[in-house]
Amino acid sequence: MSGNIKQPKTYAQAGVDVEKADRFVHRLKALAARPEHAKLWKVASGYAALYPTGADSAVACTTDGVGTKLLVAMALKKFDTVGIDLVAMCANDLICVGATPGCFLDYFATGKVEDMQADQIMKGIVEGCDQAGMILAGGETAEMPDLYQGDHFDLAGFAVGTVNRAALIDGEKVSAGDAIIGVASSGIHSNGLSLARKVIGEGHPAYVELLTPTRIYCRPAAALFAQHPGVIKGMAHITGGGWTNIGRINKTVGYEIDRPLPVLPIFDQLLKHVESRTEMYHTFNMGMGLAVVCDKSDADTILKTFNEGGFAAAQIGQVKDSYKGIRVSTEEEMLEIAFSNKT
Amino acid sequence: MSGNIKQPKTYAQAGVDVEKADRFVHRLKALAARPEHAKLWKVASGYAALYPTGADSAVACTTDGVGTKLLVAMALKKFDTVGIDLVAMCANDLICVGATPGCFLDYFATGKVEDMQADQIMKGIVEGCDQAGMILAGGETAEMPDLYQGDHFDLAGFAVGTVNRAALIDGEKVSAGDAIIGVASSGIHSNGLSLARKVIGEGHPAYVELLTPTRIYCRPAAALFAQHPGVIKGMAHITGGGWTNIGRINKTVGYEIDRPLPVLPIFDQLLKHVESRTEMYHTFNMGMGLAVVCDKSDADTILKTFNEGGFAAAQIGQVKDSYKGIRVSTEEEMLEIAFSNKT
Repeated sequence: MSGNIKQPKTYAQAGVDVEKADRFVHRLKALAARPEHAKLWKVASGYAALYPTGADSAVACTTDGVGTKLLVAMALKKFDTVGIDLVAMCANDLICVGATPGCFLDYFATGKVEDMQADQIMKGIVEGCDQAGMILAGGETAEMPDLYQGDHFDLAGFAVGTVNRAALIDGEKVSAGDAIIGVASSGIHSNGLSLARKVIGEGHPAYVELLTPTRIYCRPAAALFAQHPGVIKGMAHITGGGWTNIGRINKTVGYEIDRPLPVLPIFDQLLKHVESRTEMYHTFNMGMGLAVVCDKSDADTILKTFNEGGFAAAQIGQVKDSYKGIRVSTEEEMLEIAFSNKT
Repeated sequence: MSGNIKQPKTYAQAGVDVEKADRFVHRLKALAARPEHAKLWKVASGYAALYPTGADSAVACTTDGVGTKLLVAMALKKFDTVGIDLVAMCANDLICVGATPGCFLDYFATGKVEDMQADQIMKGIVEGCDQAGMILAGGETAEMPDLYQGDHFDLAGFAVGTVNRAALIDGEKVSAGDAIIGVASSGIHSNGLSLARKVIGEGHPAYVELLTPTRIYCRPAAALFAQHPGVIKGMAHITGGGWTNIGRINKTVGYEIDRPLPVLPIFDQLLKHVESRTEMYHTFNMGMGLAVVCDKSDADTILKTFNEGGFAAAQIGQVKDSYKGIRVSTEEEMLEIAFSNKT
C-alpha cells in the first residue's frame, strides 16, 4: 500500500460513517412502523425485540454479525473463534433485557463451502452456544459462488430467549445512588475492528490479539435472573459505539465511573494511533464488556455471581441525578462520553 | 465472456455442490447435538426450529437468505423487491410447521450504506412483512468496507412465529387417499438462481423475470390455522431442491401428481438450456410454490381460502401407499423425483 495513504485516526476516517448509518436506521424505523408494533414489549435499550407469548411472558429476539473481525480471521487463516464472537454478539444483547438464552440460528454465506474452513467456523458457533447455554437449533448455509470472492464469507446470527415480566430489564427503576458494576472483556471483542485493523495491521505483533474471542456473559446473568429476579435494574452490552452504550440503560441519569476496570493492553496499543482517548471510549470497550446497574445493596450478590463464574467484575461507579451523561475518571483525565442514540 | 466457456446444464455444473453442502450439514448436526435438543418440538420436515414456551405452545424460528437472486438485482440496479424475497424465504418456511408469523429481523451487510440502495432494500423488506402479516421488529445493518466490493451486499432474515400443539403440522397424519394441493408460484422465486442466471444471462429478454418477487403464502395459511386448525396435514415450501421438498412432508408415502399446475413460461425458457426435465424439477419450483396435503374432504375448504386470497390453487394429485417417492405426470413424460434428504 502506498505510503501516501494516511492511517485513519477515527472510526469515521476508517470508512464507517456511523451518523449516516444512524440516519438510515431512523428512516427505516419510520418506514416499518405499524400499529401492530404496539404488541411488542417496550424496552428503551433496544437490545432485543420482545414478542409476547402470554400475558407475562415473551420471547426476546436479536440478530447481529461479527463485522470485519472476519477479515482478521481470514488474514490469519484461523476460523475456529469467530463463531464464538457471532454467538456472543447476539447472546450478550439478549441478556440485557433480562432474557435467558434459548436457541440460536446461524446464517453462513460463502463463495464455496470449503470443508476445513466451514467446520472450523461451525466449531466456534457450537462452542459459543455451549458458553451461552443455547441450543444451535437451525441455520442456513448459502453457497454463492459469484457474490463472495476467494475465501471470503459472512456470518449472521439470530438468538431467541425467554423472559418473564418479573425478570424484564427495562431500566426504569434505575435511580441515583445505584451501583454501576463493570464486567471485564477479553479484548477488543467484535467492535471497532474497521479502525483497529487499520492502525494495528497484519505485520503488527498485536494483530493476532484482535482475534481473541468475545466473552459471553450469559451463564452468570441467567443464574442471576433465575435466583435473584429483579436485582439487575439495567444492563448494557458494550458493543458498537463503545461506552456510549451505557446510556441505553436509562437516559435520564448520570453515570459516574470513578473506578473503571483496568484498560487492557490492546487498547493502549490502539491509543497510540487514535485521535483521542475520547474517540477510544466512543469506539471500543476499553476492557469492560458489560455494565450492570443495581441497588447498591445488591452489588455484592451480583459481583459474587460473576466472580465465581470466572468473570472479573467490580463496582466501577454510581448513578447520579445531578447530570445526564457518562463521566469517566481515567488515570490521565476526566472524560465526558455521549449517550448512544440507539433505542 | 469467451465462447469457449461451456454453459452449465445442471445445478452442480453451475458451481453449487449440493451433496458436499449436505455432507457439511450432517457433520454440523453431529457436532451441534446436545441433550438439550430434546426440549425442541420435533417436526420431520425441518422447516423451522420449535422452541417451547409452554406445555402446548412454542415459537417457531427460521433463517434464510435470498441467494444469488441478489446478483440479478445488482445487475438490474433494482433493489425494491429482494426484501420481499427475503421475508418470503423465511415466512413460507414458518407456515410449513403450522406457525403463524409474528416478527421478523433482518441482517443487511454491505460495503457502504448507499441511501438509495439501502432504502429500496428496506422498502422491500417492509412490503414483505406486510404481505406476511409480520412486524419488522429489529435488525442489523453492517457496514463492512473491505468485505463487500462495489455495490455488493448480502441479506439474511430471521422469522419468529407462534404455534399451538393443535395447529402443529408434523406430517404424521398424512395417509393414502389424502389430497395434494398445489399453490401457484409467481416465477422462479429465490431458488436455482445460480443455474438460471447462467443459462438466462443479462442480455436475455427473460432476464428481468428472474427478479419477480417470491409469493408469500402466509395470510391464507394463517387464516386456515385460525379458522380450521388441524385441516392441513402436511405442507411443503418448494424451495432449494425444487420438488424434492414435497418429500419433507412425510417420507413413508408416495405422492402421485397427475394434474400439476401449469408450468410457467420462465421454466420453458430454462428447460431449453438445462440437461433434463428431471433436473428442472430437482432444482426449480416449476410454477408451484407450496404443496399442501389434507384429507380429501377438506380440500375444498383449503382451495377456497387460497383462491379467495388471490392465490391460484388446485388439487394436483393424491397420496399413495403403494410406493415411496414423487411421481409427476407432465404432458411429455412421467417423472420420478427423489425425496429431499433435508430433515
